Amino acid sequence: MTTTDLPELTAEEKAQLDELYAAFDAAHMTPLWTQIGGLMPTSPRPDAVPALWPWSTLLPLAERAGELVPVGRGGERRAIALRNPGLPGTPYATPTLWAAIQYLGPKEEAPAHRHTQTAFRFVVEGEGVWTNVEGDPVAMRRGDLLLTPGMHFHEHHNTTDHPMAWIDGLDIPLIHYLDAGFFEFGPDVLATKDTPPVSRNERLWAHPGLTPIGAPPTKASPLKAYRWEHTDAALRAQLELEDEGHPGVVEPGHAVVRFTNPATAGDCLSTMRCEMHRLRAGTTTGAVRTAGSAVWQVFDGTGEVRIGEQSYTVGKGDLFAVPSWAPLSFRTESGLDAFRFSDDPVFEALGLARTAREEASS
Amino acid sequence: MTTTDLPELTAEEKAQLDELYAAFDAAHMTPLWTQIGGLMPTSPRPDAVPALWPWSTLLPLAERAGELVPVGRGGERRAIALRNPGLPGTPYATPTLWAAIQYLGPKEEAPAHRHTQTAFRFVVEGEGVWTNVEGDPVAMRRGDLLLTPGMHFHEHHNTTDHPMAWIDGLDIPLIHYLDAGFFEFGPDVLATKDTPPVSRNERLWAHPGLTPIGAPPTKASPLKAYRWEHTDAALRAQLELEDEGHPGVVEPGHAVVRFTNPATAGDCLSTMRCEMHRLRAGTTTGAVRTAGSAVWQVFDGTGEVRIGEQSYTVGKGDLFAVPSWAPLSFRTESGLDAFRFSDDPVFEALGLARTAREEASS
Amino acid sequence: MTTTDLPELTAEEKAQLDELYAAFDAAHMTPLWTQIGGLMPTSPRPDAVPALWPWSTLLPLAERAGELVPVGRGGERRAIALRNPGLPGTPYATPTLWAAIQYLGPKEEAPAHRHTQTAFRFVVEGEGVWTNVEGDPVAMRRGDLLLTPGMHFHEHHNTTDHPMAWIDGLDIPLIHYLDAGFFEFGPDVLATKDTPPVSRNERLWAHPGLTPIGAPPTKASPLKAYRWEHTDAALRAQLELEDEGHPGVVEPGHAVVRFTNPATAGDCLSTMRCEMHRLRAGTTTGAVRTAGSAVWQVFDGTGEVRIGEQSYTVGKGDLFAVPSWAPLSFRTESGLDAFRFSDDPVFEALGLARTAREEASS
Amino acid sequence: MTTTDLPELTAEEKAQLDELYAAFDAAHMTPLWTQIGGLMPTSPRPDAVPALWPWSTLLPLAERAGELVPVGRGGERRAIALRNPGLPGTPYATPTLWAAIQYLGPKEEAPAHRHTQTAFRFVVEGEGVWTNVEGDPVAMRRGDLLLTPGMHFHEHHNTTDHPMAWIDGLDIPLIHYLDAGFFEFGPDVLATKDTPPVSRNERLWAHPGLTPIGAPPTKASPLKAYRWEHTDAALRAQLELEDEGHPGVVEPGHAVVRFTNPATAGDCLSTMRCEMHRLRAGTTTGAVRTAGSAVWQVFDGTGEVRIGEQSYTVGKGDLFAVPSWAPLSFRTESGLDAFRFSDDPVFEALGLARTAREEASS
Repeated sequence: MTTTDLPELTAEEKAQLDELYAAFDAAHMTPLWTQIGGLMPTSPRPDAVPALWPWSTLLPLAERAGELVPVGRGGERRAIALRNPGLPGTPYATPTLWAAIQYLGPKEEAPAHRHTQTAFRFVVEGEGVWTNVEGDPVAMRRGDLLLTPGMHFHEHHNTTDHPMAWIDGLDIPLIHYLDAGFFEFGPDVLATKDTPPVSRNERLWAHPGLTPIGAPPTKASPLKAYRWEHTDAALRAQLELEDEGHPGVVEPGHAVVRFTNPATAGDCLSTMRCEMHRLRAGTTTGAVRTAGSAVWQVFDGTGEVRIGEQSYTVGKGDLFAVPSWAPLSFRTESGLDAFRFSDDPVFEALGLARTAREEASS
Repeated sequence: MTTTDLPELTAEEKAQLDELYAAFDAAHMTPLWTQIGGLMPTSPRPDAVPALWPWSTLLPLAERAGELVPVGRGGERRAIALRNPGLPGTPYATPTLWAAIQYLGPKEEAPAHRHTQTAFRFVVEGEGVWTNVEGDPVAMRRGDLLLTPGMHFHEHHNTTDHPMAWIDGLDIPLIHYLDAGFFEFGPDVLATKDTPPVSRNERLWAHPGLTPIGAPPTKASPLKAYRWEHTDAALRAQLELEDEGHPGVVEPGHAVVRFTNPATAGDCLSTMRCEMHRLRAGTTTGAVRTAGSAVWQVFDGTGEVRIGEQSYTVGKGDLFAVPSWAPLSFRTESGLDAFRFSDDPVFEALGLARTAREEASS
Repeated sequence: MTTTDLPELTAEEKAQLDELYAAFDAAHMTPLWTQIGGLMPTSPRPDAVPALWPWSTLLPLAERAGELVPVGRGGERRAIALRNPGLPGTPYATPTLWAAIQYLGPKEEAPAHRHTQTAFRFVVEGEGVWTNVEGDPVAMRRGDLLLTPGMHFHEHHNTTDHPMAWIDGLDIPLIHYLDAGFFEFGPDVLATKDTPPVSRNERLWAHPGLTPIGAPPTKASPLKAYRWEHTDAALRAQLELEDEGHPGVVEPGHAVVRFTNPATAGDCLSTMRCEMHRLRAGTTTGAVRTAGSAVWQVFDGTGEVRIGEQSYTVGKGDLFAVPSWAPLSFRTESGLDAFRFSDDPVFEALGLARTAREEASS
Repeated sequence: MTTTDLPELTAEEKAQLDELYAAFDAAHMTPLWTQIGGLMPTSPRPDAVPALWPWSTLLPLAERAGELVPVGRGGERRAIALRNPGLPGTPYATPTLWAAIQYLGPKEEAPAHRHTQTAFRFVVEGEGVWTNVEGDPVAMRRGDLLLTPGMHFHEHHNTTDHPMAWIDGLDIPLIHYLDAGFFEFGPDVLATKDTPPVSRNERLWAHPGLTPIGAPPTKASPLKAYRWEHTDAALRAQLELEDEGHPGVVEPGHAVVRFTNPATAGDCLSTMRCEMHRLRAGTTTGAVRTAGSAVWQVFDGTGEVRIGEQSYTVGKGDLFAVPSWAPLSFRTESGLDAFRFSDDPVFEALGLARTAREEASS
């Protein structure tokens, strides 16, 4: 029934059809049969493309922005978003995910606001900034994941004499698409410049298998900081268990921890999954296709990543985007640690999760 | 920090900034501070607009399509989508919802396929078509809601000498946005032309409060047909209870039933909510804002609907779209029955649901 | 390490052991090794035994109680419990389940109370009594299941000139065992003597797959009455589907519906499962063992039931108890309808559910 | 309607009633009205009583049992249960909870078995025993909680030259009551005598907020060991936060952590709740009544505990039982750490949880 399948039309038939289509258009109607191939493909055909943003490009540009652009009310944050080349006109890394490098100079502050968009920070290098989440200042250090769930007031301040850069991940594209965004400014003056080494949420919640009964109930994860020391130990243990012949890794040489909400055991954020992956030196992973998109940042080591037909050599700080259903695989001689965030929780909540896995070729 | 807030720049500063922005662009980066107002508004600012599609326009165009356009493999269905005037270039009623009128002529058939997109049919008039869902033919009659959950094979056939039109609702825009679509063709020849008056799924599941223990487990709703007779009785009972002074209506004169999955008690579909509303003659409802969008079809009666600043007089068969956070209210002298479908389950699953309600002014 | 396994003890050793055991006893201590066989058997060894209570015995005794014993405050209900012969000194049908015949004479009333114990009524014959549950009078008729969840005020009144008897099922033994019982008297005078043909909870909730959005939220099942007309239709449909070659029965000739809470799709009561079973004429079921106990009442027809080593010929109204893990099977020439209630929800909630099934021998 | 309320009966009436009661008895029936007061009290009236078992009594008796009674197949464990004085004839600490001191001499072994009964070990002093749970040896040290969920094979071995004693908690009474017990012997020879300092389950799961994606799925808690170092740190942090004016304690001077399953965030065991409480020096707690029973063991410090009308002075190792709904309060001059286990998960799963709290009197 596609037009190509139709029998040859007479001039009169064609005129009638043109008239009908014009009437459709005037009535704000669009026939399915002219759209179905693009709308309903046999498997996902994302506009988003595999893409790489080298840290060696990002960081200098962020530093330059630090020199030229003030941070403050209005623009709110000195954050520069990664734009997927397949999504021109948007500042989106994938259809659902926002990834940006944020830069805060010596003694600078970013004022408080809150929004339905969910956010996290991941720190690939540096320290000295505290993110104050609902009155609880959280130190940011290399390897840490810090959460700012939706509608939590947050502000940042750099107490040091050196700048700091990190990665922001948000569900801005998803919230914008859904028309679900609400945003509020907080006070212009920072609520606190305290710089405690450990946040209160960690003191209550960062104890394995222990739930503090007197802690205030929270809708989002009560734990807001996941420290590198724990992440590193957990990944190391998985690879050691593999060496000893015990389960733990997801595939040979490949350890993964997911950052989870200790009050629910579910994903740490409602719309984004966060994970740290560690590949043992000499590992080649099997290609995996996942319905849904992801952004990765190399945390340490070097390797090659293959995304569909694209292949990149990546090292510390490099970010790359993985479109829906693109086969993804890694190869590393030296070993590789990489942080991943994705829209998997959205797909799982809506019954749309789907994965296809190939074994690594030897 | 918006550019308007910046101090007057010198020519050199401006040049430096231009250079920086060009470098951003070359590196596939976009600064947040030039985007934040549009991306992160203080409350939703949908592109979609309130819109009305009169049945008196839709039906004749569908009938004309029946004369000119065959139905069959490729185009798959003779369905004509409602296009929101605020979403030009798309065939979408709202950012997440597809609404179409489907038309099947006498003795026509639409061949089997399945897809991750979730679908329902709602029948505002007519009968004589059976939707065969995974081998279980389901009669379609005025007032009925029929489900085709994701990845269920389905085909339609009209056994009569008269045409039939109905409304299709799908999550096509959401699935397309998420790059979550998978689609498969079924056999070209219909699996069955049976026309049982009651489907097997109803015989197992359409008994109030009774769960058939031997029925096969299903991921989606095992009940695929919600008959007008039950819907009507449930709405009538709510208004009668109101007359007797008992709870049941959502507000004075306003009865609502939600179509639910009897195996979970949750929404009948994973990505769309379906409800039938009945307004007693002489009712004015309070304006309600809901984060998320909806499409309504008047089933019976007449009234005025107000969506934001727009006001429409509506009657049987008319469809209208309600963008996110637009205040919606009704006024009816004669009484009004209206079917509603929305993306509420998406918002609830992702922790984004939000509603604001005003009491009806007298 | 059981004493029988111990090497022959010297007199001195025996004296020392006796002294130790006496010291244990004085200190309120009991050694595991003298207890383990009874306490921790390899599979359940219930004290409760298979037991039958013929309706032809129960009903005349209840009628006689109606002549001799008034109903009113203090004793609260003219209910006579079935006592498992294996549980002497208790009024329990099984360790967890209370089953009683309740009898209310012409114009009699039973005053309001409420308690944490959960209750239902099942009517094997007769009508004319209304159970008023939290102000909503519910008619009781043959084949109906009526709920009184924990802490719901309830009172009964017989409006007719004839007596009525029915079965009460409660979790009295479980609540007593757990020391979880709270009980409150309501007013001595009945709140209502209304006799509506249909209760308000049914008018809101007894529509298949339809959830009333304006109905007040409830912790327990909002639906309090399950009518025979629906139960019968659901069972009949399963057997008809079997005739047509479609799934639906739990085994050949054996249809089952479970009574469920339409607001959760879970069991209709938190501590008891209620089901209706229908065996087609000429059916022999496979023996099933279930961890947990149950009580059955024959609703219609006749047959033989085998419980472990016991075999009974049963007919309308007869009740029987099935201890934990006793193999249960049926044989019926004429067909049999039987109501079952059990502690399955307790076992499922605590992770203790276990079933073993044998196919029916031909 | 209790017999005391009945009008004076004539001799004939009395004879008729006696005849009826005899007929009830012969038919295995018991009238409610003679039972209701005891069966359905206005609030729980447990048979179990408050009880104290001093460590200074328990430990020497366990040591003496170590001299006189071998450990091995048949008796299975050298465990001596605490018997509630209100539950004579049973070896139960409360109606639902088993508490025992277990003692394993130098180089002794307890062979493998598994059962539906759920168990934990809590260590008030000593070390040197490993519990091998499903092939994963778990070291036992002062302050540790070690889990053996239902149907997990487990065996113990003492590798040292000194004996070790600890506390076993099980749901033996509940499982016995429910007739839910299944038990299997494992091999007579120990599967392993390995003594790793850290178990494999801890290496995978004892990282705060981190879920190992490649770890095998488990029905029960995958984490089997909760180490004192973490418990102590979590409690200390709560009291420090209180000092700083922040939330975290359940009442002034009273810190609590619950041991939870990191894969679900629920209780660490399906039928028992485990918690550690810390009272700051000089604290008096408010009296709390809880529906359900508990057993406590003092871990450190001294204090007075009041249970209903009973009052005990307690110190390290002392155990006490708290019956359902008995008001419980503490007073400590020196500070007190106490381990608690209870049947709260059973009450919560069945909708029976209820608590009443009084503020501490100054």
